Amino acid sequence: MRAAYHEELASIRDGLVEMAHLAGSAMGRATSALLDADLQLAESVISADVTVDALQRDLEHRAIALLARQQPVATDLRLVVTSLRMSADLERCGDLAQHVAKLARLRHPERAVPGDLRRTILEMGQLAQRLMAQAAEVLITPDVDAALQLEKDDDRMDELHRVIFEHLLDDRWQHGVETAVDVTLAGRYYERFADHAVSVARRVVYLVTGKYADELATDPPAPA
Amino acid sequence: MRAAYHEELASIRDGLVEMAHLAGSAMGRATSALLDADLQLAESVISADVTVDALQRDLEHRAIALLARQQPVATDLRLVVTSLRMSADLERCGDLAQHVAKLARLRHPERAVPGDLRRTILEMGQLAQRLMAQAAEVLITPDVDAALQLEKDDDRMDELHRVIFEHLLDDRWQHGVETAVDVTLAGRYYERFADHAVSVARRVVYLVTGKYADELATDPPAPA
Repeated sequence: MRAAYHEELASIRDGLVEMAHLAGSAMGRATSALLDADLQLAESVISADVTVDALQRDLEHRAIALLARQQPVATDLRLVVTSLRMSADLERCGDLAQHVAKLARLRHPERAVPGDLRRTILEMGQLAQRLMAQAAEVLITPDVDAALQLEKDDDRMDELHRVIFEHLLDDRWQHGVETAVDVTLAGRYYERFADHAVSVARRVVYLVTGKYADELATDPPAPA
Repeated sequence: MRAAYHEELASIRDGLVEMAHLAGSAMGRATSALLDADLQLAESVISADVTVDALQRDLEHRAIALLARQQPVATDLRLVVTSLRMSADLERCGDLAQHVAKLARLRHPERAVPGDLRRTILEMGQLAQRLMAQAAEVLITPDVDAALQLEKDDDRMDELHRVIFEHLLDDRWQHGVETAVDVTLAGRYYERFADHAVSVARRVVYLVTGKYADELATDPPAPA
């Protein structure tokens, strides 16, 4: 009974890790599609999102089956419930990668991102992918420091988001309103994607410590 | 034991309904703040969001406690798990109302929404509030037809969102890039708010029928 239980728990965790990998990879490819106006790549990201959705439904069914069969309590119960919440975060990340790919498709054969914002969007895409890879690692090895590190790394995403707004609101902006709308939405998609990756890490912190990440952050630093 | 159980379940449902009411009301006030450049109202929406967040955490604790103490199975188990997912939707709706209020605050004493889009944004705000009220009703009385009706009513939100884009991408747009960015983001906030309200209703459909709303929608119509 216990062996089966741990196997089921591990399979839920593996499902989350797989979702994280798929979502991260999707955002990487969506960013390439956006920057290179690559329609084929955009279409492949858009059609691949069903896999992430299916994984989430499957994971939800398995979590509910595990709750029913094993009736876990305490830490184990919290682990399963938290898995459900994390799967929702990751499913949403798949959607956001799809949204970026749809922007690329909408403007094809034009490029949605003007030349002077390419580097910023590229960095947002790479950072999004990296944050998701970190979240996947934290899922595999629950490490509070590594999980809290994601919050710090996410600060860079906020900076990049501000860079976009500075460009948009600069009087010298000369790419018109359509491009402004595209870039505004793209910036929002990357920022939300990063938020969800951070949220996954936060939930791991809560599982390990029983405290919310913001409670830990306001604690005085531990003595060296 | 069963009496306590049903009381706990009812209290979770009441918590969800309260979250829906707070989120709906917040979006209504945020819309007024946005359209009237009312800073005080905007601030009150922004600071009230902690209540929705606290309700969500409380609800999560109670759901986990119920799972641990009562170890529900089958439909009851699904109900508790689904409540957790719905509370996440509703918490997010509170955030989105807060985002609208922050737009109002950011542009104060100017108005973020130009005159020719006032009516559209007003309708989006009212529709968002109405969808959330419908979601709350469906939580109180799980009715599949009423839940599916939300999906149809949400089509109007998509139409209004398209109206915004048509304005933005019209060559006669003369409100500049800053306003275009604000309106793009506002439109997105309303659309996402409505999506979450629909999502709550969809979960009720799943609870009642064991089928996802899109599965029901593709079924042939029942004979009259």
